[in-house]
Amino acid sequence: MTELTISFSDVEAAAARLNGVANQTPVLTSRTFDAITGARVFFKCENYQRVGAFKFRGAYNHLAQLPPDARERGVVAASSGNHAQGVALAAKLLGIPCTILMPDDAPASKRQATLGYGADVRTFHRLTDLPDVVARAAAEPTGAYIVPSFDDPWIMAGQGTAALELMREVPDLDVVVTPLGGGGLLSGTATAVRGCSPNARIYGVEPDTADDWVQSLQANERVMIDPPPTIADGVRTRQPGKLTFEVVRALATGVVTVTDDAIKDALRFMMLRMKTVAEPTGAIPAAALMTGRIPDVAGQRVGVIVSGGNVDPAVLAAILTGDL
Amino acid sequence: MTELTISFSDVEAAAARLNGVANQTPVLTSRTFDAITGARVFFKCENYQRVGAFKFRGAYNHLAQLPPDARERGVVAASSGNHAQGVALAAKLLGIPCTILMPDDAPASKRQATLGYGADVRTFHRLTDLPDVVARAAAEPTGAYIVPSFDDPWIMAGQGTAALELMREVPDLDVVVTPLGGGGLLSGTATAVRGCSPNARIYGVEPDTADDWVQSLQANERVMIDPPPTIADGVRTRQPGKLTFEVVRALATGVVTVTDDAIKDALRFMMLRMKTVAEPTGAIPAAALMTGRIPDVAGQRVGVIVSGGNVDPAVLAAILTGDL
Repeated sequence: MTELTISFSDVEAAAARLNGVANQTPVLTSRTFDAITGARVFFKCENYQRVGAFKFRGAYNHLAQLPPDARERGVVAASSGNHAQGVALAAKLLGIPCTILMPDDAPASKRQATLGYGADVRTFHRLTDLPDVVARAAAEPTGAYIVPSFDDPWIMAGQGTAALELMREVPDLDVVVTPLGGGGLLSGTATAVRGCSPNARIYGVEPDTADDWVQSLQANERVMIDPPPTIADGVRTRQPGKLTFEVVRALATGVVTVTDDAIKDALRFMMLRMKTVAEPTGAIPAAALMTGRIPDVAGQRVGVIVSGGNVDPAVLAAILTGDL
Repeated sequence: MTELTISFSDVEAAAARLNGVANQTPVLTSRTFDAITGARVFFKCENYQRVGAFKFRGAYNHLAQLPPDARERGVVAASSGNHAQGVALAAKLLGIPCTILMPDDAPASKRQATLGYGADVRTFHRLTDLPDVVARAAAEPTGAYIVPSFDDPWIMAGQGTAALELMREVPDLDVVVTPLGGGGLLSGTATAVRGCSPNARIYGVEPDTADDWVQSLQANERVMIDPPPTIADGVRTRQPGKLTFEVVRALATGVVTVTDDAIKDALRFMMLRMKTVAEPTGAIPAAALMTGRIPDVAGQRVGVIVSGGNVDPAVLAAILTGDL
């Protein structure tokens, strides 16, 4: 048996680092959601995290451990999403120079937010430039450090702190469910949950058009898929991470899929009944529960990580009116 | 000096009655909102209350005190809004037969929700029938009790419990702000706040097209206005209540107004930045703070009651896209 890259104590150490820096996000419940699913569901709302998503946790946990010389040379991240904002804010709080590379069609609101955290924001062309290549090119002149987005022990341990908080606030969970893209959140969550409740079941959920994890677990190796068309832009990664794959394989109970329609229904439910704004990726676990994709939840205590709430107003409006 | 109709101990008694029945709603904060307003603002989120609004508190506090013979004869309320749902759920929990009269153009979602609480829902024609008249007609055959919506000591004391919870969770507030329609919420809030922090300032906020309170306080008597066109459907009352007017006059610091545009901006901010869904009425205090209508808040600790989150999806979508 291979040693896993992160352990429960890494998650605990990350939680200590994030104490007083990350928000202790609220846990919401809904009697109506419970009636629909037959479970007792606790939503850990990382849409109320700083930058609006759990990604801040991993980014800060990582940057806080960089040695002084690396800090001085600065950090780089290529992302149009929550990773960019997480890195930008973490860098700002730690006094680290930060360059963010965004595709030139990224929403203006995300660009604005990242600029607001003091990052040097540059753009690249989504169709002709590869993010990894532009990141390396941007980092090269100064020797800046490229912050990984998920396949990294410090990132994974940081993401696990959301589940750790949830388990401490709501003990005796039988099941924990997260969205699943690169696997940073699920591997950290699984590590945290196993450390608190060895018998709890842990599921990752991905869109059925972005099922690289289902395929990889079946093939017993990391399968790469075509760029997936799902509305859930937080989980459009094409392949499981190397490290995250090992942790998920060892600790998670299973991976299931949901349709984009189920994701939109869940997002609408969360907005109109639970009054909380999730991004499509953040509504994925609720979608899995509402469509019965998580087995044997009747009468069980289920924890859900709502990963984030950063969504374009036009997309939100179109989902509300059923135009999308 | 006249004796006020409710005292701090009435609010405390209401809180004891609601303990374990109403949700203890979360308190949200936003660094960005604080940066905009210069204050430190604590949002008491009654959009997460049962039925999605604070109205459940007053309704339950009232119905729980009805004598057995009145309970047997049942209760009636005429409302298309949160009062209807609050009464329906409170009646269900207390085993009281309940009839709700709704205007025939009420949104289907509100009708569905009220039916879901087990109420007998009947309709009346908004333009030709007066709610008070239809309520009396519906109550007459069985001698059912008509539940007042705001101008009543038990209702007022119940509504004050939201502020009481807020003051207990966040001590040392300098200012507390609520939306202002009939005055049930503001009078209960003012009573609760005065009991905890005698020197805190207390403001009510109404839309500038629904300024019956501003006019009434100036005239020193209860002025009735034409049906106001504001988007904030929770505060379209045309005249302050008799009892609420006395309490607000005695305990509140002042009443200010905001425009509908400011309400929509605040609602958008709350959705997109704070990730919480408020109905237009629930966004009124945030609108007042964002537009500088509450005096001298720089550096102050400000509590805000977010009154509710029940809003039609089409209205929400139109506000998001700027079409409304």
